[in-house]
Amino acid sequence: MKSNTKFLLDENELPHTWYNINPDMPVSPGPVLHPATKEPVTPEFLAGLFPMRFVEQAVSQEAEVEIPDAVREIYKLWRPTPLFRARRLEKVLDTPAHIYYKYEGVSPVGSHKPNTAVPQAYYASQEGVRGFTTETGAGQWGTALAMACQMFDLECEVYMVNVSYQQKPYRRIMMETYGASITPSPSSHTAFGRSLLEQDPDGPGSLGIAISEAVERAAASNGELKYSLGSVLGPVLMHQTIIGEEALKQFDRADEYPDVVIGCVGGGSNFAGLAFPFIRENLKNGNRTRVVAVEPTACPTLTKGTYTYDYGDTAQMAPIVKMHTLGHGFIPQGIHAGGLRYHGMAPHISALYDAGQIEAVAVGQLETFEAAVTFTRSEGILPAPESAHAIRAALDEALRCKQAGSEEVIVFNLSGHGHFDLSAYDAYLKGELVNYSYPEAEIKSAMASLPEVRA
Amino acid sequence: MKSNTKFLLDENELPHTWYNINPDMPVSPGPVLHPATKEPVTPEFLAGLFPMRFVEQAVSQEAEVEIPDAVREIYKLWRPTPLFRARRLEKVLDTPAHIYYKYEGVSPVGSHKPNTAVPQAYYASQEGVRGFTTETGAGQWGTALAMACQMFDLECEVYMVNVSYQQKPYRRIMMETYGASITPSPSSHTAFGRSLLEQDPDGPGSLGIAISEAVERAAASNGELKYSLGSVLGPVLMHQTIIGEEALKQFDRADEYPDVVIGCVGGGSNFAGLAFPFIRENLKNGNRTRVVAVEPTACPTLTKGTYTYDYGDTAQMAPIVKMHTLGHGFIPQGIHAGGLRYHGMAPHISALYDAGQIEAVAVGQLETFEAAVTFTRSEGILPAPESAHAIRAALDEALRCKQAGSEEVIVFNLSGHGHFDLSAYDAYLKGELVNYSYPEAEIKSAMASLPEVRA
Repeated sequence: MKSNTKFLLDENELPHTWYNINPDMPVSPGPVLHPATKEPVTPEFLAGLFPMRFVEQAVSQEAEVEIPDAVREIYKLWRPTPLFRARRLEKVLDTPAHIYYKYEGVSPVGSHKPNTAVPQAYYASQEGVRGFTTETGAGQWGTALAMACQMFDLECEVYMVNVSYQQKPYRRIMMETYGASITPSPSSHTAFGRSLLEQDPDGPGSLGIAISEAVERAAASNGELKYSLGSVLGPVLMHQTIIGEEALKQFDRADEYPDVVIGCVGGGSNFAGLAFPFIRENLKNGNRTRVVAVEPTACPTLTKGTYTYDYGDTAQMAPIVKMHTLGHGFIPQGIHAGGLRYHGMAPHISALYDAGQIEAVAVGQLETFEAAVTFTRSEGILPAPESAHAIRAALDEALRCKQAGSEEVIVFNLSGHGHFDLSAYDAYLKGELVNYSYPEAEIKSAMASLPEVRA
Repeated sequence: MKSNTKFLLDENELPHTWYNINPDMPVSPGPVLHPATKEPVTPEFLAGLFPMRFVEQAVSQEAEVEIPDAVREIYKLWRPTPLFRARRLEKVLDTPAHIYYKYEGVSPVGSHKPNTAVPQAYYASQEGVRGFTTETGAGQWGTALAMACQMFDLECEVYMVNVSYQQKPYRRIMMETYGASITPSPSSHTAFGRSLLEQDPDGPGSLGIAISEAVERAAASNGELKYSLGSVLGPVLMHQTIIGEEALKQFDRADEYPDVVIGCVGGGSNFAGLAFPFIRENLKNGNRTRVVAVEPTACPTLTKGTYTYDYGDTAQMAPIVKMHTLGHGFIPQGIHAGGLRYHGMAPHISALYDAGQIEAVAVGQLETFEAAVTFTRSEGILPAPESAHAIRAALDEALRCKQAGSEEVIVFNLSGHGHFDLSAYDAYLKGELVNYSYPEAEIKSAMASLPEVRA
C-alpha cells in the first residue's frame, strides 16, 4: 500500500450525507439582509429566488444532511474522486513532506462545480420549476449547471460575462452542447442590462453585473425560473463537503492525517468543500490541522478586504451579507483565474477566518503559473489557473518543510483541470504574464459605497 | 449491483500483461518491407528507428507480454478506467439493448494514447536514448508522448501538421507545457520538409508528411533520437489491449458479455485495444461477439480501400506494409476527426478484416455529431469527434435492437473527451458542418503510385 500513489473508494463508500457546518460554527456568520429594506430576509423572500429545499438547507441546524438517492446516482458517474499522493512532485521538490491532492477534475465538466449543480437541479425539478437562471465568468459554473439541468429536464439560462463570452468561446459552446442558452452580459434581457448597454454598448461586464441580471430574470418570472448560484451561499458550500468527507475516508486508508489543508478561494466553495469536514474534526475532536485559504494578490478579499456587510452583486439586487469584501463595485484586474475574481467571500468562511479557524495567503499570478508548470511536469495533470493557487501554497508549505526537515502531511484541493485555460499557459511560457499588485486605490473607492446597515 | 452504472476495478486488479495477438492471428499480416529495397526489413533496420524492446515486441510470439512495474505505476495515475452502463442513453433511445462504454478520457491528456506512450518512453529511457521524434495531427498523440517523455526525462520533438498548428493552438500549448518542442510540418528541419517548403512555403501539411519528417530526424541522429508512432504498428496495438483486458474483468463483474464490440479506426490503436482481447475469446473459446470498426466516409480505408502493400508515409521513407489503403498520397477532406485521417490501416486489423473476423462501417460527419450531442446530453461526457464515430455505430446497433426487440449487449470505446474540439461542436450546432462523400477520383489517383512489390 505504501508504494501506491492513488487512494480510491468504492462506490458503496460514497458518503450518504453532506456536512452542514451551521450547528458547529463557533461564531455566527451573521443574518442575510434584504437588499432594499436591509432587514433580515424572510424564507418567503429567498424562496422567490431559490428552490424551497435549498432555502431550508440554508437555515438547517442538522450537521448531517442526507444526499438524495437521485443525486448520489449522478455523483457516481465520476465520484468518489481519487486522492493522490504526489510522490513525483515530492521528489522534484526534494521535500520530506507528504503531499496529497484530491482531484475533482475527473467530473465530466472538469471541475468540482457539479457537486452542487446536481442537487440544485434535482430540488428544482422536484418542486416543478421550469428552469434556472445563473451567471458565469470563465464558464466553469455555467457548464456544470448546464449539464445538471439537462439531466433533470430543466431549462438553463446563463448570463456570461461579456469579455469571457467574446474571448473564451469553448466554454460557451460546451454549455450550448448541453442544451443551455447563453447570453453575453450586460444584455437587453433585463432592465439593469439595458441601463448599462445605454451607457456602453460594448461593456466588458463583470460577475457582479451578470449575477444581477440572472437574479432579475428569476425574480420577474413568477416562480417559473429560479436562480442558481455556484458558490458563496451556505447550501452550496455544504454540497461541496462531499469532497472532504471522501478525503477523510481516504486518509484513513492511507493511514495518515493532514497537518495542513489548502484550497483556493474565489467565492469559497471548493475550499469549503475540502476544508469544512477537517475544521469539524478540529472543533469537535481537538485536531490541530492548519486550514489555509489561497487567493490571488489581484483580488485579495480575505487578506486585504474588510469584514462588513455588503451586497452580493453590483446592482444591489442580491441579498446583503456579512463578509470579507473589496466592495461590490470592485472589478479586479484581468488575471487568468477567472473563478477567483469575486469581490466578496462566503459568509461562513469570512466568519471562520475572523475567528482564527482559517489562515489566508495571497499569491501572485507569476509564481502561481510557475507552480502549475512544475506540477504538470511532475504529476502529469495540467491544473486550472484557479486550482494552481492552491498548488502554489502547497509548494511553499512543502519547501518550508524541507528547510525545517519536517515530515508534515499536506493536502490541497485540485478543483479542476486547465484544458480550457491553455491560452494562459501560452502567455506564461512566452513570458507575457505579469503580476498584479494590490489595487489599493480602486478598493478604497469601491468601499465607499457600502450599504448602511444597522447591525 | 444491477442499479449501478459504473464498473470499477481496484488498482490491484490492473492487468499485469498486454495481449499480443501475433500467435493467434488466423492469417499473417504480411512481412514489413524496406522502403528502398522492398525486401523484408531486418531487426537492425527497425532498431535504428525504434527502441530494441519495441522491435522485439513486434516479432514476439508470446501471447502475454508482461507490463513493466514502472509502466504500471504510471498507468495507475488514471487506470483502471471505468466501464459505464449507459442507462440514460438507453432510456433516451428507448432500446432494450444494454449499452456500455469504456471511458479512456480520464487520462491526464484526455485520451487512450498514453497507454502506449508511457511504455515506449520507458523502453527508450532504459536503452539510454536521448529523446523521441514523432508526428501529430490534431495533437492527441503528441500530447501523450510529451507527457510520457517528461516522466522519463526524455526530449520530445513533435512535428505537428501545419494546418493544425495554426488552427489548434491549445494542443500545441499543452505539449509545450509538458516541456516538448513543437515544429509545424513541413519544416526546415528536414531535407524532405525543405523540398516541400520550396514548392509551397505555406503548405497545410499532412500526417504522412509529418511522419516522414519525424522519421528522417530520427534516422539522421546516429541513434540518439528514436522515432515513436502512436498507432498502426503491432506493439502499439498491443500496449492498448490493457483497455480490453480491463473490460473483460469488468463484464465479469457486470455479469454480462458483449454481443457487439465497437471502436473507431484511424490507424486502429484504440479499436484494437478494446477489440483484440474479445477477438481472442472468439478465436480460442468459440465466442461469437461481433467486432465492428467505424471509420469516416471521408477516409474510408477499410470499406473502400484496397488490401495491398503501401508506404506508411508520404515521402516513402517509412516501411512498406500490407494494409487497407487509399494510397500514401491521399489527403482526406477536412473532417473534424483529425485522428481518423490516415490513408492506411494497421496491418493486423487489415488482415483480420480480410479474414472476416472484423466488420467495418463508414459513417458521415453530420450523423456522427448528431450522435455525439445525443450522448453528451444523456451521459454528461462530451466525446472527441473520433470517439463519436463509435457512438454513432453503437446508436445504430441499439436502434436496430429496438426494431428487433433484441436485448443485446453493446460496448464501445469512448477513447477520449472532446474538450479540445469544441469549435467542431460549434460548427455543428450552427448548422455549418457538411457531410463528405467518398472521394473516388482522388483515391484513384492516389492509388496510382503504389510501390511495386514482388510479394
